[in-house]
Amino acid sequence: MKSLFETLAEEASRLTAFAGNTLDRRSEQRPEGCLEEALGDARALVYAVSENRLLIKFGESADALFTLGEIEPLRPDLVGAILLGFTQGGEPRLMIPLQAKAEELPAPIKALDYRSVYQQHLLSPAQLGEMAQGASLLAWNQATRHCGLCGAPTQARAGGYRRYCDTCDKEFFPRTDPVVIMLAVDEEADCCLLGRSPHFRPGMFSCLAGFLEPGETIEGAVRRETLEESGIRLGRVRYHASQPWPFPHSLMIGCYGEALSREISFDGTELEDCRWFSRAEVRALLSSPGGQAPSVPPEGSIAHRLITDWALAGERQ
Amino acid sequence: MKSLFETLAEEASRLTAFAGNTLDRRSEQRPEGCLEEALGDARALVYAVSENRLLIKFGESADALFTLGEIEPLRPDLVGAILLGFTQGGEPRLMIPLQAKAEELPAPIKALDYRSVYQQHLLSPAQLGEMAQGASLLAWNQATRHCGLCGAPTQARAGGYRRYCDTCDKEFFPRTDPVVIMLAVDEEADCCLLGRSPHFRPGMFSCLAGFLEPGETIEGAVRRETLEESGIRLGRVRYHASQPWPFPHSLMIGCYGEALSREISFDGTELEDCRWFSRAEVRALLSSPGGQAPSVPPEGSIAHRLITDWALAGERQ
Repeated sequence: MKSLFETLAEEASRLTAFAGNTLDRRSEQRPEGCLEEALGDARALVYAVSENRLLIKFGESADALFTLGEIEPLRPDLVGAILLGFTQGGEPRLMIPLQAKAEELPAPIKALDYRSVYQQHLLSPAQLGEMAQGASLLAWNQATRHCGLCGAPTQARAGGYRRYCDTCDKEFFPRTDPVVIMLAVDEEADCCLLGRSPHFRPGMFSCLAGFLEPGETIEGAVRRETLEESGIRLGRVRYHASQPWPFPHSLMIGCYGEALSREISFDGTELEDCRWFSRAEVRALLSSPGGQAPSVPPEGSIAHRLITDWALAGERQ
Repeated sequence: MKSLFETLAEEASRLTAFAGNTLDRRSEQRPEGCLEEALGDARALVYAVSENRLLIKFGESADALFTLGEIEPLRPDLVGAILLGFTQGGEPRLMIPLQAKAEELPAPIKALDYRSVYQQHLLSPAQLGEMAQGASLLAWNQATRHCGLCGAPTQARAGGYRRYCDTCDKEFFPRTDPVVIMLAVDEEADCCLLGRSPHFRPGMFSCLAGFLEPGETIEGAVRRETLEESGIRLGRVRYHASQPWPFPHSLMIGCYGEALSREISFDGTELEDCRWFSRAEVRALLSSPGGQAPSVPPEGSIAHRLITDWALAGERQ
């Protein structure tokens, strides 16, 4: 009998940015006091955040991990601390918001927004994944300071993995928003559909994408979003890869869609351009010189993965 | 060149319950007043909900769609109404919570919890999908009555697709929780891993499952959850199907996992049993006589899909 797994190439999700987190989260085994215990562990290392920006120490290399002693003068908000998990050796890893503002940071420490940290390749894949986990949890904790049912203040529990309203006796769990991102492919014409959002950098084209809605399957969301944004009807849908996307807490679900129609229509608000690109044209985009020349999203993004894995599939076979 | 889509069998997601919704949601084109306009449309039909239970009119068949006139005496909460979308003919479909309690309903109308409506096959696939969309949105609206940032009351917008805090000037979007559900398969031994949660009905075994966490890929979540719950290490992971799951607003993401170890360990809290089942044993479970005999979840569930599609794969080839 044929193996279920033999047609799988290398796991594409592993090749996306933010996917390299290897911490043991122990998210289901977090007794009361687990945060305090981690904070009391001399081996604990910490990602520090000031006004939604990650602190980086610039020395011989960029370093984003601090001891608790190092961030002590920067007024850490220990009640808002996130226990990310533990290394293989059992060392706690945390993310801690600071009350100190960016301008108070002593050289050589700078605070960078998460997107710049990613785009400038400042962290290892493992650390980038840890940052994504922490950034998502921090954003969710900040957006859930009050109970959605009664409006009373909530308290963090389980190292930031839960919040609790003692008026309603209700527990809240972290939020992750599924987003579908897809490359529509016309296999007969050997071309794919790329669009340009008005907020992209000049010349860049990418996959279409949108939030999955309540009551949809992944495949249904892929077909609906593609039809809404481009007017193209899709038939079969194939899942390809997923990626944690900490802006603020999404799960990107990357798929290929089989185009059943050719005529593009878009309304100019979500997209300012949308076109079919031949495989040769896409290969040319992949080696774009940058600047304002036509290009696709950079390596690490799931859009890059979808586009590259389709465009180069012929070369690999 | 090989087609991206040719190895896909019939789309398994289409065979799951709650996946049959064909309404045009127009969720991005909802101008102010869209709800009022839909409520003023004489063709509008409504799912009515009392205390989180769906109203069903029992006559020759079970009917869950009401005219606005029919529910008028049951004190509809029109401010809490959800505009689900429009039929192909442009007729509005809504879900409206009632202030009337279940005991006030006139015969032959009864109020049933969503799960019973699903388990008793009372609705068509399309209507079951519409109910899932409405139930998810209603639950989210109810849980987001107050702003998570400041605690002030929020107001529904866009027919229940947004909520707005005018103190913070912040908009909130519907929540969907991604859950991974997976069948670990040992292909050499030709068997799969099934577990029993203490809250399952007697004799039932199913796939393992758990919430995807912030900063994880789908494949990462499948491996972590399987390891945590059963002690089994997984290698490659293959996506199979997804399902909207309105309890209260999840997206089930169904995968196969390649088992790399054999020895099961579980802690007895999440699972009360976990075992390897041979393909022949699973086929026997699929034709279980019911009652307290060993069985798997019923058709419509994504667990049934994962288990059946693996167990019967040999017969189809």
